[in-house]
Amino acid sequence: MSLVLYERLCADDRRPSPFCWRARLALAHKGLTPELRAIGFTESEEVAFSGQAEVPVLIDGDAVVHDSWAIACHLEDAYPEAPSLFDGPGGRALSRLVNHWVDHSLQRALAPILSPYLLASVRPEDRAYYRRSRETQFGMTMEQLAVRRPALLEALHPVLEPLRQRLAETSFLCGERPAYADYLVFGEFQLARSVCDVDLLGADEGALRGWRSCMLDLHGGLARSVTAFETAA
Amino acid sequence: MSLVLYERLCADDRRPSPFCWRARLALAHKGLTPELRAIGFTESEEVAFSGQAEVPVLIDGDAVVHDSWAIACHLEDAYPEAPSLFDGPGGRALSRLVNHWVDHSLQRALAPILSPYLLASVRPEDRAYYRRSRETQFGMTMEQLAVRRPALLEALHPVLEPLRQRLAETSFLCGERPAYADYLVFGEFQLARSVCDVDLLGADEGALRGWRSCMLDLHGGLARSVTAFETAA
Repeated sequence: MSLVLYERLCADDRRPSPFCWRARLALAHKGLTPELRAIGFTESEEVAFSGQAEVPVLIDGDAVVHDSWAIACHLEDAYPEAPSLFDGPGGRALSRLVNHWVDHSLQRALAPILSPYLLASVRPEDRAYYRRSRETQFGMTMEQLAVRRPALLEALHPVLEPLRQRLAETSFLCGERPAYADYLVFGEFQLARSVCDVDLLGADEGALRGWRSCMLDLHGGLARSVTAFETAA
Repeated sequence: MSLVLYERLCADDRRPSPFCWRARLALAHKGLTPELRAIGFTESEEVAFSGQAEVPVLIDGDAVVHDSWAIACHLEDAYPEAPSLFDGPGGRALSRLVNHWVDHSLQRALAPILSPYLLASVRPEDRAYYRRSRETQFGMTMEQLAVRRPALLEALHPVLEPLRQRLAETSFLCGERPAYADYLVFGEFQLARSVCDVDLLGADEGALRGWRSCMLDLHGGLARSVTAFETAA
């Protein structure tokens, strides 16, 4: 059976998309190794067959699945004998809540910090598109965002507190083993290390640092294996 | 078997503690009706038998359990045949993450809005204690907090976004049936309606309003049955 994952390509072969990392790690969690096809921000026509323009897109035999949450649910349902991504129906329901928290609270705090670095990381031919779309979103220029970075990092600190509290109790957000909610959150840290050497964590962030390092080691060091900056590893 | 829940008592027989509402709703979810014993902020000696000073405290036969999370886990483990609070191990793990989000993100946004009203709601003999402890916590007087309410309500709005997104998809945060994560979040809204008529939700909050109303109706209208303000119901 063919198994293909379309993901986002940036300059220097970087793969910063957190949505695509959710899918890559969910596939690895299920013991699956897809063929990867990486496309730039302005190559949406490559996934037009999926009926929309975003990545990740998974081809699994006859199934074409887009959207990282739909991919996770597809993998959980199509591969029930492999390790679970959700560990029961309650875990699936609350993973979706965590998904929304990552997309709307964590990303809200991270995006203005990381976007100027992403601008430098997207392929040269994608830069005009990226700058225009993100400056519209934030209502300010990339240069204005970069100047505000210290305040933005300070504003990030309390947003991470639920993670700190949870990781003071268990090795992973999902308990003693990682599961999909860990991948949801880790995708944001993987985005960060893909595009910059800014350390999002303070000096005393032992539990979060330890968790991030464990996440990099998972599945044969999958997330560690790609082009990234060292400092934030 | 004796089943007793110690909870927080405020003036006019109000019961605003969100931690105690977690326990009350978890007990109702399991089909259990405890004897309630309500104590004021300065009556900690009443629960000294539990080895600490906070409520809720549950006495369940020979077991004495304090801390709302420990009570939820006790009920889930001691009453496995009653409806589940977590719906599987993944649900338990992520309910704990939601617990930390409520305690550290949602409460962080809500506490400065609600504390001036709580000051007016605690029993007259508890007011000096409450004012002193909360003004130390916030680094400003209750009157200064009250003046800032419009800005604080505005800052609350984005914190609620993960809930809005989730409730646009399903009836409850935990899916088609309520479970412990719903009680965790709802406890904060129950606190609000217990002490003030400020509506925390904007005019266009259909999904969140509908959910809040359903939560008030659960278990025979348990949360609706207590002394509260109408406007924020």
